Amino acid sequence: MAPTEVTTRILRRLLAGGVTSRAERLLSRVHPADLGPLFADLSPQEIRQVVDLLFGQHRAANTLRELPPELLPQVFESLSDERLAAVFGRLQIDDMLELAERLDEQRHDRVLTLLPAHKREELRKHALYPEGSAGRVMTTSYLAVDEKMTAQDAIEQIRAFGEDTDAILYVYVVDTDGCLEGLVPIRRLVAARPDRPCGEIMIREPVSTTVQADQEEVAHLVARYNLLAIPVTDDERRLLGVITVDDVIEVITEEATEDMYNLAGLNDADRVFTPASTSVRKRLPWQFLNLGAVFISAWVVGLFEQTLDQIVTLAVFMPVINGMGGNGGVQSLTVVTRAMALGEIEFSSGLRAVGKELMVGLAMGLCAGIAAGTIAWLWQGNPWLGAVLCAAMVVTLTMAGLLGAAVPVLLKALRQDPALGSGAIVVTATDAFGLFCFLGLGTLLLDRLA
Amino acid sequence: MAPTEVTTRILRRLLAGGVTSRAERLLSRVHPADLGPLFADLSPQEIRQVVDLLFGQHRAANTLRELPPELLPQVFESLSDERLAAVFGRLQIDDMLELAERLDEQRHDRVLTLLPAHKREELRKHALYPEGSAGRVMTTSYLAVDEKMTAQDAIEQIRAFGEDTDAILYVYVVDTDGCLEGLVPIRRLVAARPDRPCGEIMIREPVSTTVQADQEEVAHLVARYNLLAIPVTDDERRLLGVITVDDVIEVITEEATEDMYNLAGLNDADRVFTPASTSVRKRLPWQFLNLGAVFISAWVVGLFEQTLDQIVTLAVFMPVINGMGGNGGVQSLTVVTRAMALGEIEFSSGLRAVGKELMVGLAMGLCAGIAAGTIAWLWQGNPWLGAVLCAAMVVTLTMAGLLGAAVPVLLKALRQDPALGSGAIVVTATDAFGLFCFLGLGTLLLDRLA
Repeated sequence: MAPTEVTTRILRRLLAGGVTSRAERLLSRVHPADLGPLFADLSPQEIRQVVDLLFGQHRAANTLRELPPELLPQVFESLSDERLAAVFGRLQIDDMLELAERLDEQRHDRVLTLLPAHKREELRKHALYPEGSAGRVMTTSYLAVDEKMTAQDAIEQIRAFGEDTDAILYVYVVDTDGCLEGLVPIRRLVAARPDRPCGEIMIREPVSTTVQADQEEVAHLVARYNLLAIPVTDDERRLLGVITVDDVIEVITEEATEDMYNLAGLNDADRVFTPASTSVRKRLPWQFLNLGAVFISAWVVGLFEQTLDQIVTLAVFMPVINGMGGNGGVQSLTVVTRAMALGEIEFSSGLRAVGKELMVGLAMGLCAGIAAGTIAWLWQGNPWLGAVLCAAMVVTLTMAGLLGAAVPVLLKALRQDPALGSGAIVVTATDAFGLFCFLGLGTLLLDRLA
Repeated sequence: MAPTEVTTRILRRLLAGGVTSRAERLLSRVHPADLGPLFADLSPQEIRQVVDLLFGQHRAANTLRELPPELLPQVFESLSDERLAAVFGRLQIDDMLELAERLDEQRHDRVLTLLPAHKREELRKHALYPEGSAGRVMTTSYLAVDEKMTAQDAIEQIRAFGEDTDAILYVYVVDTDGCLEGLVPIRRLVAARPDRPCGEIMIREPVSTTVQADQEEVAHLVARYNLLAIPVTDDERRLLGVITVDDVIEVITEEATEDMYNLAGLNDADRVFTPASTSVRKRLPWQFLNLGAVFISAWVVGLFEQTLDQIVTLAVFMPVINGMGGNGGVQSLTVVTRAMALGEIEFSSGLRAVGKELMVGLAMGLCAGIAAGTIAWLWQGNPWLGAVLCAAMVVTLTMAGLLGAAVPVLLKALRQDPALGSGAIVVTATDAFGLFCFLGLGTLLLDRLA
């Protein structure tokens, strides 16, 4: 695999020189997954040429599937409706829907009209599954057989299935109503005596999921049981499709991104090369929410303006309380939300986690409080100042541990996404509470501090 | 699949009543991956009984592999050296090493002496691969054939390979030196004419990796090219092992945890149910680093004590600057480190990302600054205070965007883990810088603010 930049340069030169046969050969050696970065550097005219060549190689469908979303509008533009419909026809249903949803409405309708009727109908049905559900990522291209079919005949079926055997790792055994009875790994099919019926060699009651299931739960199942594919059924166990492990990897990666983004108050669609204007638009709502939150802290400080007027040194240590409290809260929050995302805790064990983080917060508060208090005492020469800072730190970090763990557990109990919004709530509450304790204690001990 | 708690209760009752045959039948229906939560609730005595039963079913090895690490010491204790050696002998090499490393040294040596010589030697070799390398997660149980072998003979080989065909999704074609020439998916083997040689139907130059490669890079390859397994070779392309997609899913999940943890300044080993004392010990070093960092902000505020003494209202708005700056920095940092983890940016495009986040920071600063400035003006009745807050906010958020993006890009250019430490650096620098700007501007405009 030559580095993309070299390939791009050579390709451009070949295209400019009209040496299409060599450009074609070069392209045929590039994996569809590597064409994305290559497309990013081409002009619209060059993209059209490349898509033409790929179309000739019957590789346009696979390429389109692998392209990053931001490149799609340009590529769509360079394809006629007929070509686009032809490409769509070669895609598996989940990929087709994903692409179709990125077309503008008029084009979407025009292209769909050009699809064969059964594909159009399948797409319409597929679009009915809610976003984020198993139904959305499953493929409907799988091989189902009767339990009486012999291993040999099943192998013949695989042969007859043709080129697109990507999803075929298992043969699914269904009854006359189409209900899932079991599955036979191809390995087993190969190793079995040719005349043995599939019903005898199948794995019974395989791990499966339903079309309504959340993609994240499906990913958990696949990861937990080390599956290569998981059958998807309706509530009556009728087999509807299959989710393969490559889609599961995508789901796992996406969910991890989402969780990290949620902690930082970011929107999923705000990626590194999203145009700056889009990023700003996506971040502004959170920004204003956060602005409201920090003004709560400002308001708390405002309550103690008289105290600060007398002991201005207290203001010097406000960033210490804020910085340590925020840090502690985010740590507890990260540990707990990550454990939740990995399915390591439920509500009851969640309470245990809250207890633990509370204890950790207390211990951390004691350590940090004694250290910070000592520094403050030595720096400002007033032991009472050190004592106030120490006490406020203990209370703040204990609160940080409690909130950091309790907020996601509560959000989850209320059936909200535990990662979304937790960060803002925890940091805001810890900040305001910490400043209140610190300045409040300062006010009580005003005489000693002056 | 009955919920674990019910299974546990029934199992305990059966064990207590000595009804081992029924306990055995119950256990045989539980998937190895589900035995972990079940073990967590059993007494040492009960664990011993269960392990005995699993051993009888030849399922002890698979169970051990799936158990969470914190349960292992107890299970190890309930097994004799001989049994443990027998279990180890049934494991694939990567799993064996992982478990062997968890035994205390004496026991480790005793158990290893009981292993067959070739297994012991293989284990010794495997332990030489550095942690986190492809060599550590690969399995050495794969099927390699000569290119002249026919499809039919290859299928016979698969049959002869026996029970443990988990890793067999492909047959690898090697030359006389053991160098990887290609691979044949089992699907293709099945579909091919029986007398065709593997060399003719193989996929040439398949995506592969070397033993020294980083696990994260291997995971990227598998995800990018939708592989089910990736062959691992030495520098001369000699085939040494195979990494399967289930191990890749584990790597992806672990790396995501690590990245989230790094952003929060947490150690990998600090999980939700790690004992509180361990968590405290793991968090303390970061805590003290962070304490040093927040005292930089305190020192900056200390520089302006005179200003604050005259205009105490400035102290009220310090949490606004800190809160907004920290939030902005963490957002840019999250977007950029996540893109790096997903392999979406390199150094050159990293600079583009820095430029973008700088612009976003500026725009966000303008929006937040105008809003915050207006609130401050209306609240305190002084337009100059609003202007100072607005200007400081613009500068702080621009800086936050710049630092949030530039720090990980620079760390990566210096070949450091971009996620580790970035959070602390960005938040500290943004805080100190923001306070300096705000209080500095306040000092310059002291007459207007008074």
